Amino acid sequence: MAKEVTNKEENYSKWYNDLVIKAELAENSSVRGCMVIKPYGYSIWEKMQAALDKMFKDTGHTNAYFPLFIPKSFFSKEAKHVEGFAKECAIVTHYRLKNAEDGSGLEVDPEAKLEEELIIRPTSETIIWSTYKNWIQSYRDLPILINQWANIVRWEMRTRLFLRTTEFLWQEGHTAHATREEAVEETYRMLDVYTDFAQNYLALPVIKGVKTENERFAGAIDTLTIEALMQDGKALQSGTSHFLGQNFAKAFDVMFTDKHGKMDYVWATSWGVTTRLVGALVMAHSDDNGLVLPPKLAPIHVVIIPIYNNNDQLAVISEKAEKIKKQLTDKGLSVKYDSRDTHKPGWKFAEYELKGVPLRLAIGPKDIENQTAEIARRDTLQKHTYPQEGIEKVIITLMDEIQENIFKKALDFKEKNTYKTDDYEEFKDIIENKGGFVLAHWDGTSETELRIKEDTMATIRCVLMESEPEDGKCILTGKPSKQRVLFARSY
Amino acid sequence: MAKEVTNKEENYSKWYNDLVIKAELAENSSVRGCMVIKPYGYSIWEKMQAALDKMFKDTGHTNAYFPLFIPKSFFSKEAKHVEGFAKECAIVTHYRLKNAEDGSGLEVDPEAKLEEELIIRPTSETIIWSTYKNWIQSYRDLPILINQWANIVRWEMRTRLFLRTTEFLWQEGHTAHATREEAVEETYRMLDVYTDFAQNYLALPVIKGVKTENERFAGAIDTLTIEALMQDGKALQSGTSHFLGQNFAKAFDVMFTDKHGKMDYVWATSWGVTTRLVGALVMAHSDDNGLVLPPKLAPIHVVIIPIYNNNDQLAVISEKAEKIKKQLTDKGLSVKYDSRDTHKPGWKFAEYELKGVPLRLAIGPKDIENQTAEIARRDTLQKHTYPQEGIEKVIITLMDEIQENIFKKALDFKEKNTYKTDDYEEFKDIIENKGGFVLAHWDGTSETELRIKEDTMATIRCVLMESEPEDGKCILTGKPSKQRVLFARSY
Repeated sequence: MAKEVTNKEENYSKWYNDLVIKAELAENSSVRGCMVIKPYGYSIWEKMQAALDKMFKDTGHTNAYFPLFIPKSFFSKEAKHVEGFAKECAIVTHYRLKNAEDGSGLEVDPEAKLEEELIIRPTSETIIWSTYKNWIQSYRDLPILINQWANIVRWEMRTRLFLRTTEFLWQEGHTAHATREEAVEETYRMLDVYTDFAQNYLALPVIKGVKTENERFAGAIDTLTIEALMQDGKALQSGTSHFLGQNFAKAFDVMFTDKHGKMDYVWATSWGVTTRLVGALVMAHSDDNGLVLPPKLAPIHVVIIPIYNNNDQLAVISEKAEKIKKQLTDKGLSVKYDSRDTHKPGWKFAEYELKGVPLRLAIGPKDIENQTAEIARRDTLQKHTYPQEGIEKVIITLMDEIQENIFKKALDFKEKNTYKTDDYEEFKDIIENKGGFVLAHWDGTSETELRIKEDTMATIRCVLMESEPEDGKCILTGKPSKQRVLFARSY
Repeated sequence: MAKEVTNKEENYSKWYNDLVIKAELAENSSVRGCMVIKPYGYSIWEKMQAALDKMFKDTGHTNAYFPLFIPKSFFSKEAKHVEGFAKECAIVTHYRLKNAEDGSGLEVDPEAKLEEELIIRPTSETIIWSTYKNWIQSYRDLPILINQWANIVRWEMRTRLFLRTTEFLWQEGHTAHATREEAVEETYRMLDVYTDFAQNYLALPVIKGVKTENERFAGAIDTLTIEALMQDGKALQSGTSHFLGQNFAKAFDVMFTDKHGKMDYVWATSWGVTTRLVGALVMAHSDDNGLVLPPKLAPIHVVIIPIYNNNDQLAVISEKAEKIKKQLTDKGLSVKYDSRDTHKPGWKFAEYELKGVPLRLAIGPKDIENQTAEIARRDTLQKHTYPQEGIEKVIITLMDEIQENIFKKALDFKEKNTYKTDDYEEFKDIIENKGGFVLAHWDGTSETELRIKEDTMATIRCVLMESEPEDGKCILTGKPSKQRVLFARSY
């Protein structure tokens, strides 16, 4: 086992933390709750950014940048938003330090107190809608389709690398529309973009749905979500898209003249995904040997490792390796040839398994003789020997197969761990002892939802978007229900 | 003249501000000193990022991300750094708001006071070197070649869009090395990267040099700089690369074991460029009609505008336009076909001139007859008619020509406005009445430098890197000097 990673079955939470640290994705910083995203972890985030950014641009969005600071008074303008976001936050109160008179170091200069405190953005609806007010007069100014890549601060009490940190990175889309229909359409379009990204890049099957009132974004009319299942049976909310109605337009007095000369408030959406998705990638696919990365997000696709007894052999292997590397690089793959003599092949095998490199190519003395190479797949851990001639084609094909296989494995897992029950005792047993998604009837009230949460720590992840109506009785109260909803414990 | 842009000769400063606002690059936000970077301005920054990021990666660097917050005590650890950076900054003192008891809104919860205040990073040497301490034990852990794309806050009293704002975006490289020589080499390498970027992307000729002690980065042994000349004769520092010696390693106790088993402090560099470069682009090349963007950084390379009297003509033109657009897009150019019927061609011409689109293609009724199109260059404002057949090749060639011409024009300007003098009265006259770079002898003392600054508001921009030694006498004191240095007023 690589670098003493905790066994997944033994202690899932410690296994996760071990992987993040030992695969060098991130670490805790000296600032409480804030992480350092290390180069290997950051390069996964860069791949996510590139893919998402292209999807956003292909759907007509452009990027912009709004201030990090939000005046305190802005939060009070939208009644529900303030309850959700203005509480646990980082507050800038002063703008100058001075040398302490007693020589003890630096202290805050009391004379440099801000008239109005500034909040580090926990989300940017308020600052953005205060800006949109100046940009929008007429329907001709609409739609506005803007995305921002930014850092966000929420003062979390309990933090975990990637999954919940005081500072995190994200993108936040903020769009403005002339009609309700158009805004609703945008909300669904962006959830589809996230679904596409989750399934085809993260290799993560997700369930699309609508949040209940309790779980809704503060200030939204509707919050759409994609929910994924982690290997410990807990759900992870992996992306949300909010239909904000006219709430923020009303809060910031953003009106426009429509085609018929009538004034109305502007319709809004917002949507975002965060660095938490790096955590999702780890939790969903990895094993006791380390990360398992889908090729589309892997910083290194192929590692080539020479096995040799003397420098003559190394020279021959290196020539072959460099040739294969070039062929693959030309096809757009990222290839590392690790010929360091400071580490043995076995150590390297373990190292790149830990890092989740999808394919390992080993070339040894026998391979020189036979003009072959050994390919090991990270997802299945299977090894096969192939002729060197044409091996680049094998590798390209395997990339797609691996991407697909990782998705399929996660899909199987999700299907095996999705339950349907009409019995509350069974419901509690599944939640407590098996984990997973549970489809059950619910009477539609917040009260029932909260009682179930209190009983079981499971919440309604969403009301499914793609499911048939079905008459039934609420699993807790027995009152009539029209549709099953998705319950789970969650991150 | 487009959208009432102030005349450049009349009021350069207002002209600059008008351009930034009217070309929709950025605007002031409701937070003092912070700007909103609008989509068009941000897309220029994205192009800069893409080019620089590739250059950094090609020279062996990787990206990572460090916390936004820096504990106050970190600043006191490096004696000079604290003087330069810990004074005018944004200070987080609390982490919670609560509803005011009198119902007047939100107030800072006095019970949520941080034990140690957090500073929003004005630069990240301290937080990064406190992290590197845990990453470095031996020479095998070196070099570390990391870059970060991030937002930065410095509490500036007087701000100007892009050139000096409280919050700005930048990249900061932070490298760690086993030897002084290697760190010095890195410092110079990155200055060369910036020079390459400035000249070949920004089309901005720059002078490379070393800062004097007064102008050095707080905590550096040496600061290297590239200095560019703006059209009003003022210099703009366009990128800096710092050799930090062992200062930060000593401040944060970062030691390593070298090849011979000896312990030593680690050697450091840092280097950065900021969104100020968007301002430089405007100031260096633009004119009274609007922006003039070098093709390599232009969000739109070519705009195609139809001129028509009826829908039949429009249909014919659109077919041609879409064909040309596709040909150019296939070659990697960004092309906009603006067939909106809400605006007249003349309005569109002015609009895209304002936006600095390098080439405009107009197709009118005569062009349909003759199978031609009219090309107008933004840099020279010259128009020529070309046959449609093969026009994509003409355009591709013109892109390179325009890039080169914009650089050449700026180079001519710089050369015409670089003076050499040995007479202090003439020196003062040039600085006061002509502007530009002045090469003059200096006795090497801070005292003289500061007296000249007081007299003329000109500072030593740098001691030139590429110039012959030349014996002379200090322009102020008459004391002996070995080399001319570069004086100018600056942004």
